[in-house]
Amino acid sequence: MDDTLEEFRKYREKMNEKILASGNLHIQRFFNLDTRAYEQGVLPTKTKELLGLVASMVLRCDDCITYHVARCVEEGVTDPEFFEAFNVALVVGGSITIPHLRRAVERLEKCRQTRCTR
Amino acid sequence: MDDTLEEFRKYREKMNEKILASGNLHIQRFFNLDTRAYEQGVLPTKTKELLGLVASMVLRCDDCITYHVARCVEEGVTDPEFFEAFNVALVVGGSITIPHLRRAVERLEKCRQTRCTR
Amino acid sequence: MDDTLEEFRKYREKMNEKILASGNLHIQRFFNLDTRAYEQGVLPTKTKELLGLVASMVLRCDDCITYHVARCVEEGVTDPEFFEAFNVALVVGGSITIPHLRRAVERLEKCRQTRCTR
Amino acid sequence: MDDTLEEFRKYREKMNEKILASGNLHIQRFFNLDTRAYEQGVLPTKTKELLGLVASMVLRCDDCITYHVARCVEEGVTDPEFFEAFNVALVVGGSITIPHLRRAVERLEKCRQTRCTR
Amino acid sequence: MDDTLEEFRKYREKMNEKILASGNLHIQRFFNLDTRAYEQGVLPTKTKELLGLVASMVLRCDDCITYHVARCVEEGVTDPEFFEAFNVALVVGGSITIPHLRRAVERLEKCRQTRCTR
Amino acid sequence: MDDTLEEFRKYREKMNEKILASGNLHIQRFFNLDTRAYEQGVLPTKTKELLGLVASMVLRCDDCITYHVARCVEEGVTDPEFFEAFNVALVVGGSITIPHLRRAVERLEKCRQTRCTR
Repeated sequence: MDDTLEEFRKYREKMNEKILASGNLHIQRFFNLDTRAYEQGVLPTKTKELLGLVASMVLRCDDCITYHVARCVEEGVTDPEFFEAFNVALVVGGSITIPHLRRAVERLEKCRQTRCTR
Repeated sequence: MDDTLEEFRKYREKMNEKILASGNLHIQRFFNLDTRAYEQGVLPTKTKELLGLVASMVLRCDDCITYHVARCVEEGVTDPEFFEAFNVALVVGGSITIPHLRRAVERLEKCRQTRCTR
Repeated sequence: MDDTLEEFRKYREKMNEKILASGNLHIQRFFNLDTRAYEQGVLPTKTKELLGLVASMVLRCDDCITYHVARCVEEGVTDPEFFEAFNVALVVGGSITIPHLRRAVERLEKCRQTRCTR
Repeated sequence: MDDTLEEFRKYREKMNEKILASGNLHIQRFFNLDTRAYEQGVLPTKTKELLGLVASMVLRCDDCITYHVARCVEEGVTDPEFFEAFNVALVVGGSITIPHLRRAVERLEKCRQTRCTR
Repeated sequence: MDDTLEEFRKYREKMNEKILASGNLHIQRFFNLDTRAYEQGVLPTKTKELLGLVASMVLRCDDCITYHVARCVEEGVTDPEFFEAFNVALVVGGSITIPHLRRAVERLEKCRQTRCTR
Repeated sequence: MDDTLEEFRKYREKMNEKILASGNLHIQRFFNLDTRAYEQGVLPTKTKELLGLVASMVLRCDDCITYHVARCVEEGVTDPEFFEAFNVALVVGGSITIPHLRRAVERLEKCRQTRCTR
């Protein structure tokens, strides 16, 4: 796996553990709701991950984008599908999203080259 | 059609015409790109409208939500599908989106009761 | 109670019921987490409601501001305390928050004149 | 003057007076800084009001937009100049700004038809 | 002191000096208002710093979070108090704040291990 | 040219090429509209670049700020003009923009020391 993505994954995991170990029950429940929001329901996980990706792009959160790009790759999203979703985010969110689009494309490329998991 | 939705549709149409009549070519092109972003491509229109809906909810734009709710209804999105998409927006965007969720649900209900078009 | 606040309270209640009746378990749980975030813990409710108020102001959500102003009044927040909290929101969030500050002050005044509850 | 604009102006004035009468010195100073940011300096007031207008559009604050549209009209901004500024806001901020663009154009039109002052 | 926090503090100080040396009087006054917003008033500094922290989290500004975490530590905020404030920010701002929560917790930990000052 | 700015320019160019090579026609058109929004029209390019700079600051996008600072330098914006524009962004956007202001001033300084181009 690409070093940057691997580093991100490890940091994410380590800090999530610390947060969940804090003993704040409400935060634990929020994290659980966050995970479950993308589970298969009447909408397929692939669609939900695309929703998460576009929401992350218009809100301009690089870490969230990295996470959802990796998950979308796992769900079999193709490059043309990625770019159509990116285009929706770009039109809705404007040119202010372009720096995030650049990094999203870079991460997607790294995910394609290596096996990227969460 | 419900009066509020009909009023919104008319205002939207009237002002869009004025904007396009302003003679600013770039704004005309932007409006064209906006329309085309949701057209059938490798991703179906239904998925793209859901992307537009969730993006509008996390960015908290009531008019945009109204528009995409109506479009999603036209594309055959069911109530359980709507609520799963709403849930993604709620988890990503937080409780600050709840007032917009209330209005989205009200508009969805009106769309179901009457024939709502753009 | 002032008509505007009463109307807001009724609409809020009616729509929340519809949302919770939708059968989406995750949304129900989110609403529960939202309510519980402001309960007395190691931080008093009054402090938490002030946190909610300032967060709502910098994110510029009028309905959320109305809700937290009413809750802060219930928790005994005085006018000078309100204005110090408003000032933090104003400095952090900038002049773009001023229209929301105006409406916050109007609602606070109405809450003081009448008995305002959620 | 158009009723909507006149109503906005009166509400704005009335609430600003209440805020300034609250005795919070810091808020008074912030309001002063806000006013002075648009005064003639090395950049002309017209340019600064355009900066305020575009900032208000990308942050999507209707009241702020109304205020700066009226101020820009006073500073002699022409319609083609308005639309070029609107286009920058639209491209930077994306389609989510379109509902605000509609209302901006409506208010501009009203300002042109009547004498609109702050 | 931890290197990252020390580096942040030095960069912050150096650039603030340059900004204040620019000769723009209004910016100097804004910086002054910013500092004074957190001073003891009818609300204690501890509460105001928690307001600043939560506002910074929902607006997702890492540098602002780092600053207010350090200030809250100085004001004697305990870990359970931090996590209750983090939870308010998380619920209001949604999962998009989680990457900032991770970094906030990391910085809090570093502040606890070393003496962290502004 | 300063290494950081040069690195930014190269990364920006490389990724833009990849994005444009993706074959998504709508994204290509959006990039074209983005470029053209700042071209000389009834408003001079210098004014438009200042609009882009202030919009980028209130939306808090460092890469966008870097780009527009460099463009404004090319258009002959003086330091006092920069600081008046920064002040508008600071007042509108609040203290949350200060970390971005620091980096903007650092980049401006680097642009002045070296020849900085896009």
